[in-house]
Amino acid sequence: MPQHIVIIGAVALGSKAAARFKRLEPDSRVTLVDRGKLIAYSGCGIPYYVSGEVNEERELQSTAFHMLRDTEFFRKTKGVDVRIETEALAIDRKNRTVNLRHLPTGNEEILAYDQLVLATGSTPFQLRVPGTALQGVHTIQDPESARQIRSRIAGGKVKRAVVIGAGFIGMEMAVALADLWDVPTTVIEYRDQILPGVIGNNLARMAQRRMEQKGITFLLGEQAKAFESDDQTHVARVAMETTTLPADLVIVAVGVRPNSALARQAGLEVSERGAVQVDEYLRTSDPHIFAGGDCVDLRHLLTDMPVYLPMGSLANRQGRIIGDNLAGGRSKFSGVTGSWCVKLFDLAAAGTGLTLQGAKNAGFNALSVHVSQLDRAHFFPEKGLMSLELVIERDTGRMLGLQGLADMGDALVGKVNVVAALLPSAPNARMLSSLEMAYSPPFSAALDILNVLGNVADNILANRYRGIHADDFAAMWKEREHNDLFFLDCRETLEAEKYAHAHPEFWHNIPQGELAERLKDIPENHRLVLICNTGARAYEALVTLNNANFNDVVCVEGGMTALTAAGVQV
Amino acid sequence: MPQHIVIIGAVALGSKAAARFKRLEPDSRVTLVDRGKLIAYSGCGIPYYVSGEVNEERELQSTAFHMLRDTEFFRKTKGVDVRIETEALAIDRKNRTVNLRHLPTGNEEILAYDQLVLATGSTPFQLRVPGTALQGVHTIQDPESARQIRSRIAGGKVKRAVVIGAGFIGMEMAVALADLWDVPTTVIEYRDQILPGVIGNNLARMAQRRMEQKGITFLLGEQAKAFESDDQTHVARVAMETTTLPADLVIVAVGVRPNSALARQAGLEVSERGAVQVDEYLRTSDPHIFAGGDCVDLRHLLTDMPVYLPMGSLANRQGRIIGDNLAGGRSKFSGVTGSWCVKLFDLAAAGTGLTLQGAKNAGFNALSVHVSQLDRAHFFPEKGLMSLELVIERDTGRMLGLQGLADMGDALVGKVNVVAALLPSAPNARMLSSLEMAYSPPFSAALDILNVLGNVADNILANRYRGIHADDFAAMWKEREHNDLFFLDCRETLEAEKYAHAHPEFWHNIPQGELAERLKDIPENHRLVLICNTGARAYEALVTLNNANFNDVVCVEGGMTALTAAGVQV
Repeated sequence: MPQHIVIIGAVALGSKAAARFKRLEPDSRVTLVDRGKLIAYSGCGIPYYVSGEVNEERELQSTAFHMLRDTEFFRKTKGVDVRIETEALAIDRKNRTVNLRHLPTGNEEILAYDQLVLATGSTPFQLRVPGTALQGVHTIQDPESARQIRSRIAGGKVKRAVVIGAGFIGMEMAVALADLWDVPTTVIEYRDQILPGVIGNNLARMAQRRMEQKGITFLLGEQAKAFESDDQTHVARVAMETTTLPADLVIVAVGVRPNSALARQAGLEVSERGAVQVDEYLRTSDPHIFAGGDCVDLRHLLTDMPVYLPMGSLANRQGRIIGDNLAGGRSKFSGVTGSWCVKLFDLAAAGTGLTLQGAKNAGFNALSVHVSQLDRAHFFPEKGLMSLELVIERDTGRMLGLQGLADMGDALVGKVNVVAALLPSAPNARMLSSLEMAYSPPFSAALDILNVLGNVADNILANRYRGIHADDFAAMWKEREHNDLFFLDCRETLEAEKYAHAHPEFWHNIPQGELAERLKDIPENHRLVLICNTGARAYEALVTLNNANFNDVVCVEGGMTALTAAGVQV
Repeated sequence: MPQHIVIIGAVALGSKAAARFKRLEPDSRVTLVDRGKLIAYSGCGIPYYVSGEVNEERELQSTAFHMLRDTEFFRKTKGVDVRIETEALAIDRKNRTVNLRHLPTGNEEILAYDQLVLATGSTPFQLRVPGTALQGVHTIQDPESARQIRSRIAGGKVKRAVVIGAGFIGMEMAVALADLWDVPTTVIEYRDQILPGVIGNNLARMAQRRMEQKGITFLLGEQAKAFESDDQTHVARVAMETTTLPADLVIVAVGVRPNSALARQAGLEVSERGAVQVDEYLRTSDPHIFAGGDCVDLRHLLTDMPVYLPMGSLANRQGRIIGDNLAGGRSKFSGVTGSWCVKLFDLAAAGTGLTLQGAKNAGFNALSVHVSQLDRAHFFPEKGLMSLELVIERDTGRMLGLQGLADMGDALVGKVNVVAALLPSAPNARMLSSLEMAYSPPFSAALDILNVLGNVADNILANRYRGIHADDFAAMWKEREHNDLFFLDCRETLEAEKYAHAHPEFWHNIPQGELAERLKDIPENHRLVLICNTGARAYEALVTLNNANFNDVVCVEGGMTALTAAGVQV
């Protein structure tokens, strides 16, 4: 029997659910309601519109074959009735109606539904500090806010920009301002690293250094206290605890909150953080109402806890599932692991699953394995370094997450996606050793970096290998005069002598190939800290030393490459 | 108790097994024996040395930190004794000894072993035709043959080259000759497509056309009958059935055969094709003898049949496993799915698992799904088309293989690796719909192409979608005057009118958005053949038509893009 579906919100999930449902039930009626003028646009594309890489705003709203996904498009090609500039005021669950107001005219209307979909999305947080209403202070809400920012920059009015928040949007906006528009940009982040929560501290520092080389300034552990103006109209400065930064453009990118007022008023279950609660069919506590996208909590597949992950790719997949279920299907959205990637100038960062800290916070006894290697056959001319951190549970060897950085972004995303595909089945990290990855010198190393990660994880879990990270090394090196540490550089003399000359008392060099013949040069009763360029020779040396009954031996994971990238000075 | 391990063959697997074993049992002795002068080199790098992309032969033999892996390196850093230019003449399994001959001196020696490893590799097939001994006729055997080819080209002596065999090595050599050295090159392949056996016919034709645009000439279904000379010394021509090609360089790349004479003489089990038989621990029929790499058959994980896959990346992984098991471990090599990738000028081809034909040959009731889409957010400026063919079992929906082509090679290899990682667990193709792939506009589309493949597979398995491939379309179009076919172009009029004007009787155009209102223009009792640019709009039109009770409707998978790429003319 034909039914009437009303969908509140028409950006990512709403328009996808409408299209999928109409394909399955073409005789049913769908009404898509949105507060804004623009529908079905790519929110994730906004930073690239600001940067100018996407030339026209309408491209964000187009299909891959250049058709504008506007009201007319949905009516004509999808058979979906769209009401733009229309706000949903209230839901009457008993009578299954929703009250609408057409914003330009103020006309109100009561619309009956058989099933309702909440795709109300999210709203960026604004800071609770003076001056947020000044011109030039923006959150990234929709293409309109992007248009304002871009026209301000293009008009030559921006000499200095400040971005508040070093998450995905903050990083993308900083790159857009600095790379494409050449605007001197400072990023303020109140936590102690960039990309907090999604990548480990060591990789974050490596990425930060690369962005600093491109001219971005970072102020970590800092907060904006006020936005100040000279003319009471335009922003001129950002005041912090001890200092003040000049700025004629401020982007506030400190996260978003779910739009759930409508759901809450209707008595639907809403979480503490304000997200609509849904089951695995994306059904709310009312069986006639579905919800998805940026307004709901999802289940994290690794922690089995609710998680709030407002991401466009998830919304798209949920839209199809809601479309199926509106038509009587039983499609499931079983949960998320949190896969992501972001372009930071010519560096890519990507990840999936839990970070080491995230795993510990969730109660796992976790450790992480760091491997840096060329993501090509080493003899191939075009190549770049890839650094990966694999998070595993110590007792079981279960894989919990992978994060990484690389110059070759597609290659990195490919590695992360392999682990993302495997994570839901909770595999042991050792299985990475036996993955059959496609190999050819222009595209990978004969032993894929994922195979290497599996091998190193195996060595660690079998207690054959003990690695330390760049920050552990930095702490040890700082205490070099007070501890019984013996720092041993396992590289060839030519590579090591610079350091050995600078610190003759502390920096020792025995090339790995000569170690077996020079064991008498190694002191007993010391912790031996082994280092080479990427970690490979240090591991070989560790094996030699363990076999000679030196048992307190650690390797610097990723070697000098990891130290340099993390800004650790020797 | 310390043991003595003898390893015959020191290229990929042999040197890896030696190094792994010595790490686990440093007190045991390892002797690595090789007929050649060079050991531990990358055979897969040879075409890149010929092309000049790898400048020096020794780079193929170096570690990532530029150390030459020669006899001295293995002795000093690995504690492994290496005998080069030494041939293993016979194995005495009863007394556990192997007879060696030092080739330069002719000295013979009997070496006792506790465990033996056969890493004897493979030898390229030579054609059984007259003239193979002429100068300028080469197989790709080792760095020495590459050096000869390169010096011949660099000496300006090569005006025209012929490559025989359109497999991986043939393709890589053709690209090396034509791209880097600008030598006019013809490829002769006796089967009817390039990359036979590893990629489907449609994708093969697309790749072939791209290579033809770069100047390579292909002669498919042809065989060389003789190599001819003018001076009885140098090759001058390749004679075929009906024609003769001038050529002063001929590369014969028609596959390799396992080197198993030693194993056979020793009475070890050897397959019909001559490969040494091993179990999942890579142990031969003699429990004291292991074998791996290019001289063994492996188990195919999808067909459960023996398969011969001489690939460097597999040899590397097997080396580690043999190293473990020599030291008393129980590491398993459970089998292969056959993952591969190859660079064809600026196009990449890659795959894993079975092709459609391969699946049918193995007895599967298989079908394939073809999706072409941009491998970036469609609004992102830098992007390229990716075309994937997913092979699935019709009755169960089980995934059997994936092959593809793309301009962005790393991105393609990433997709193939995801499926390669999943294949061993025999998943349903529908699960691709719910993969959580990392998304950001510079790296992927919001709905990843793997998600799309899963969705299309779901629609096909649920009988909501019937696709045809470029070759099916070509056959139908050829018969357009004789059949009750109605060709319907679902694109906008501007896109379609060129074809509609050229074939007014046969090529009909109704934009997909207008279809629901123009159903009266569609004839009954015809098979409707729908086409658009990539297949997406044709699928939407198919849904509309099915719902209007048109039941014999098919879509051209990949649309005009697939036709053009496959060279199908309308």
